[in-house]
Parts: sequence; C-alpha cells; structure tokens
Amino acid sequence: MRLDIAVLGGDGIGPEVVAQSLKCLRSVEETFGHTFRFKKALIGAEAIDKKGTPLPDETLKICKNSDAILFGAIGMPKYDGNPNSKVWPEQGLLKLRKELDLFANIRPVKVFPALIKQSPLNKKLIKDTDLVIYRELSGGIYYGNKSIDSGTNVATDTCSYSEEEISRITHLAFKAAKNRRKKVTLVDKANVLETSRLWRRVVNSIAQSYPEIELETLFIDNAAVQMILNPSQFDVILTDNMFGDILSDQGSVLAGSIGLLPSASVGTEHAMFEPIHGSYPDAKDKNIANPVAAILSAGMLLQHFKLNEEADALVAAVLKSFSKKIVTPDIMGSSKYGTNYVGDFIADNIM
Amino acid sequence: MRLDIAVLGGDGIGPEVVAQSLKCLRSVEETFGHTFRFKKALIGAEAIDKKGTPLPDETLKICKNSDAILFGAIGMPKYDGNPNSKVWPEQGLLKLRKELDLFANIRPVKVFPALIKQSPLNKKLIKDTDLVIYRELSGGIYYGNKSIDSGTNVATDTCSYSEEEISRITHLAFKAAKNRRKKVTLVDKANVLETSRLWRRVVNSIAQSYPEIELETLFIDNAAVQMILNPSQFDVILTDNMFGDILSDQGSVLAGSIGLLPSASVGTEHAMFEPIHGSYPDAKDKNIANPVAAILSAGMLLQHFKLNEEADALVAAVLKSFSKKIVTPDIMGSSKYGTNYVGDFIADNIM
Ligand SMILES: CC(C)[C@H](C(=O)O)[C@@H](O)C(=O)O
Ligand SMILES: CC(C)[C@H](C(=O)O)[C@@H](O)C(=O)O
Repeated sequence: MRLDIAVLGGDGIGPEVVAQSLKCLRSVEETFGHTFRFKKALIGAEAIDKKGTPLPDETLKICKNSDAILFGAIGMPKYDGNPNSKVWPEQGLLKLRKELDLFANIRPVKVFPALIKQSPLNKKLIKDTDLVIYRELSGGIYYGNKSIDSGTNVATDTCSYSEEEISRITHLAFKAAKNRRKKVTLVDKANVLETSRLWRRVVNSIAQSYPEIELETLFIDNAAVQMILNPSQFDVILTDNMFGDILSDQGSVLAGSIGLLPSASVGTEHAMFEPIHGSYPDAKDKNIANPVAAILSAGMLLQHFKLNEEADALVAAVLKSFSKKIVTPDIMGSSKYGTNYVGDFIADNIM
Repeated sequence: MRLDIAVLGGDGIGPEVVAQSLKCLRSVEETFGHTFRFKKALIGAEAIDKKGTPLPDETLKICKNSDAILFGAIGMPKYDGNPNSKVWPEQGLLKLRKELDLFANIRPVKVFPALIKQSPLNKKLIKDTDLVIYRELSGGIYYGNKSIDSGTNVATDTCSYSEEEISRITHLAFKAAKNRRKKVTLVDKANVLETSRLWRRVVNSIAQSYPEIELETLFIDNAAVQMILNPSQFDVILTDNMFGDILSDQGSVLAGSIGLLPSASVGTEHAMFEPIHGSYPDAKDKNIANPVAAILSAGMLLQHFKLNEEADALVAAVLKSFSKKIVTPDIMGSSKYGTNYVGDFIADNIM
C-alpha cells in the first residue's frame, strides 16, 4: 500500500516521540513491503515563531493532501502564562481538527498485564480494564462563540451541539460496541446542561436501532469516580468534547502512565493519529519521553487502513518491550532506557 | 448560641443522612448548651410531586430566614431518564444556590489514617492528602443562558464569568491558603476557553496582593490526573463551577468513599452545608447510606459559626467511629452497621 503521511511533531516532546513512530512505520514499510511517504509540517509554537500563526496554510494544505496525519503534541507554557496574548499554539490543533472535520476522537484505554504493577490503583480493580472513549472532537464549548466584553469584563464561551453532530459520533460508538462487549455509556451532565439533554434524546433514539447494544448514562462527576473505582464496567464511553478531554486523561492513570495512550481522530475524509499526552516542554530533548503512546498511535493508523497484520506486529513489538522491561523511566523509575533506545527496540522488533 | 437551621433532606438517601446530622447537632446542643431550632422544608423530587416545583416559595422563605441550611441530596432517575421533561429536581438546588448567592462551595478532601486501607489508591501516594477545593458555585455554564432551537435542533449552554464573580471567590481561596500550606492551584482550560483566560488574568492580578501565597495553574485534564497520582501537591484548589464539580467528586476516591466528604456553600449572607455525594435512590431506606459526609457537613456548620470546640468534638466522635470500625458497608464490606447505628454512635460520643 502507498500512503502519504503528514508528520506534525508540534511542541515540546512531540517531535522526538513522533520520530519513534516514524522509525516503526519505516520498519513496517520494509517488513511488509509498503510505501509510506512522510511530509513534515509546522504547527503550534514553532509555527507561531516562524510563520506568525499556529497553523500555517502550507501545513493545512499538506494535511489535506495526505492520506493520514501523525501528530505529536502541542502547547508551550510561555503562552499559558500570558492570558493576554492573542494567539497560542493550541489554536493550531483546534483549527486543524475543525478544518479536517475530525469529529470523532477515539481513545482506547487498556491495562497492559506487564505494566499492571506500575498503576497507582488497586490491581484487582483495574486489571480487566478495556474500554474505548469516543470523544466528540469538533463541536461543543471548544468551538462555540467566545467573547470578552472589555467594558464589563465579562468573558463568555458558548457550548452548542446539533442533532447531526451528536448523531454521527453516536453511530460510530454504537458500531464500535457491536464488535466489542456491546455496551455504550453516555457521559453527560443532563441534570444541568441543555446540550446534555439533547445528547440524551439523540442517543436514546439512535439506541433503538441497535437493540443488541446496552445503553447506560452517567453524569460526568460520577463517571470521573467510576473511571477509577470500577473501570471494567465500561466498554464504549460516548461523550462530548470537554468531558471526553477530562475523562480520557484520567483514563491514563489506569494504564500506569499517560505516556502509553494513543488516539485516532477521524472524520469522513481525514484521519489523524496522536498520543493523548501533552507537550511536556520540561522533558523536551532529555531523551526521557515515553514514545509508546506515539508508536501505538501509528498502530491505530495502520488499523485505520486495515493493515491489521502490520498493526498486530507493531503492538507485539511494544508488548515485547514491556516484557523485556525496555521502557522509559515514567514506567519504571529505575529504567535507564531513553526515548530513542525504546523506539529503536520496538522498530527493530516489528516482524 | 441560638441558631435557626433550615433542614432540606431532599431526595433519595438525603433525608436519612441528614437525620443523623440532626442527632449530632442535638447532641452538641445538649453538651454545649446551645439552642438550635430546626425547620424542615421540601426540595427536589418530593417538592415537584407535592407542589409542582423543585423549590417552593415556602422553602426559599424558610432558608432566607434561617441562619444556616442543612441540605441532604438531590436527584431522581425518573427525571434523568426523560430528557424531555420541563422540570427536574436539580433545578431546585441550583435555584436555591443562586437565590441565596452561595458563590463559594468549599470542599475539603482529607485522607483519614484509620480508613487509608479502604482507598483503591496506592497508600503512599495519598496518605498526606489534605486539600480543599474552592469551587465557584453561582456562575459559569450552570447558570448561563440555555436554549434549544426546535427548528434546527441545536442546543446551547452559555458559560460566562465576570471579573467580580471570579474575584470574590479568589479572595476567599487565598485567605484560606494563608492559614494552610500557602499554595493556591488554579484549575482551568485556558488553552481553549475565554472564561478560563479571564480567570487567569483576574487570579494572577489578585495573587499580587498575597505575596506569601504561591500560585500555580493547571489545565483541568492534567489536574484530573494529578488528583489521583499526586494529591499531596495540592493545598487550595480554586476552580469554576463545572470543573469543581468534577474534581471534587474525583477527590472522594482519595478519601475512600464518596460517603465521607462534606461541603459548605457560602455567600455573604447565607450558608448551606451538604455532603458532596448524590441522592443514590437505590440505597434509599435501606439503612446502608454512610451518614459521615452529612455529619461532617454539620461540623462545617459549627465551624462557620466559630463553634470550634463543638466542631472538634463532632470530628473526634467521627474519628472514634472509624477507629472502632463502627462504619457503614461502603467503608468496610463486612460491616454490619447501618446508617442509624453509626449516626447514634457518633451523636452519643460527642462530648
Ligand atoms: C491541547 C488541547 C487543546 C487538547 C484538547 O483539550 O483537546 C488536548 O488536551 C487533547 O486532549 O488533545
Ligand atoms: C446535583 C447537581 C446539580 C450538583 C452539581 O453539579 O452542582 C451536584 O453534583 C453537586 O456537586 O453538588
């Protein structure tokens, strides 16, 4: 298979972890005889510094003309520290998601048996964790009108959802549940929010056409507790943009490190693959960042193109790194292996 | 001291846990020679059933004329299940908070040494947890305009914050930090939301007048992870209404049961005290609900009126119940003690 892949390393540790994904995809190319063409592009803080905008037109064009996008991470504290600045790195990612209409962010959370000891949680509670979060990614409060009235100093964010926006991701979530344990949990705050109540109506009505799937609903505050206390109750979690952001980061605690969780962001025409972790500028260029989330994101890319054998080989190499304890220090404090070494090991073991 | 206390049991297990707080307050009355007058009032589902509204005028009047309010819990699944209904129990609580201008919800999260074994989390990580959440309670997306366009089927919630709304709770949080470990952590999503950016500006500027207090900022998604991985880093957490709702429920996981955490909701003229747990209708009238959160909420009421000796005596009685293992089954699966027994034990041991 020929694939054109845009590579957006982004900020902080983004470029170095994505470099490990590339190694793995090159290894897949060789082993399985595919042709992947990689094209790097600027996004985030570096793009602001060099082009004055977090998402240059050139980058958007490269992404639109690619079959898939590998993304690293975004965000730099110098922008967080200054709430007055008019432009900041995250806007690049948000705009990219919107422009490519990447409406579904798919975040699997699995507890790897080889790593279960690393989790700060009770092993018994978490050992059967195998869930996937379907987070709506192109609507909600992330994209609603924002304003600040300079007279009254009142700031406003607007959260809107249309039936159509809810419906398309709901169908994806129910379809995913069909091939899994046949349960969908809708997480919302329907006792307070109007948008949540629309989610409930739309999801309840779509559920009728999937009679084999059990639908459950949970308020976000309760879901945040259940995620820790009893994660194995979940199969597919369906939720909006903001709640999905919070819940999926929280899910990383189950896995033992946020450096382990991949994600896919898909629309009808485009697909992007990125670790769920952030840019951790403090760890940049120290060769300590865990590349596994980025590598497993490349695995999701392979799955997306039905390269299942290839994806399985990549995952097998990752599992081998775990069982051989070739892991970065976030997984095992005493580990002396760095980002590059772990990346090389995994790439070399794709066979 | 004479206090008029409005008693709003609410839904589900609310009335039975509040009944235990009353036992304890009566015990304080006797032991310390105070006069508390209790006045019950309807709220939530029962109020809808009997009066057609979740917050009858009579209830609001009783609350306004009281020195303090003891609140149980709110919410009934029959309303959650029906996103089309025009009225639901939670509106009663939200309206009450607004009418009384209870803008600060104070939620302490402590890990009790006697219960540390119950926590699903790594004991070492959580043992030094002693934090308090200052959640803004009368603004944000809970109270912004809500609409549903019946033509387009687009639902909208609006999140607004004014400088003044942010400022008043920020001062409370910084003042609290002065008497604690001198650190405030602002939790927001300033990389996406305009309201969060206003929070940052206002909080940064107020921080100047508290030079002895360290201010830190965290994005909500990261905070949800840190809350589990490293809770002892927090002293005072300052956040908006929605993020505070999620984070504080999550905090209950640290304590070992959501049945343990109290809260105070205060404004300039009124104060209400309520457990952070929900109404758990499934547990209603089964004599299994943990009364400790409600009892500790009564303890916060005593503190509010500077009845510190009395509050200490109440807390000591609670700690005695823990060390004697007189606890409900949520704390210890094998326990045979019910709500009433635990309530009696604590009330009898206030001395
Ligand atoms: C960087 C930020 C805008 C982003 C988000 O909140 O969506 C990140 O936290 C994520 O989850 O991908
Ligand atoms: C019942 C609900 C409206 C309420 C809230 O979200 O504020 C509750 O969860 C709480 O935290 O007090």
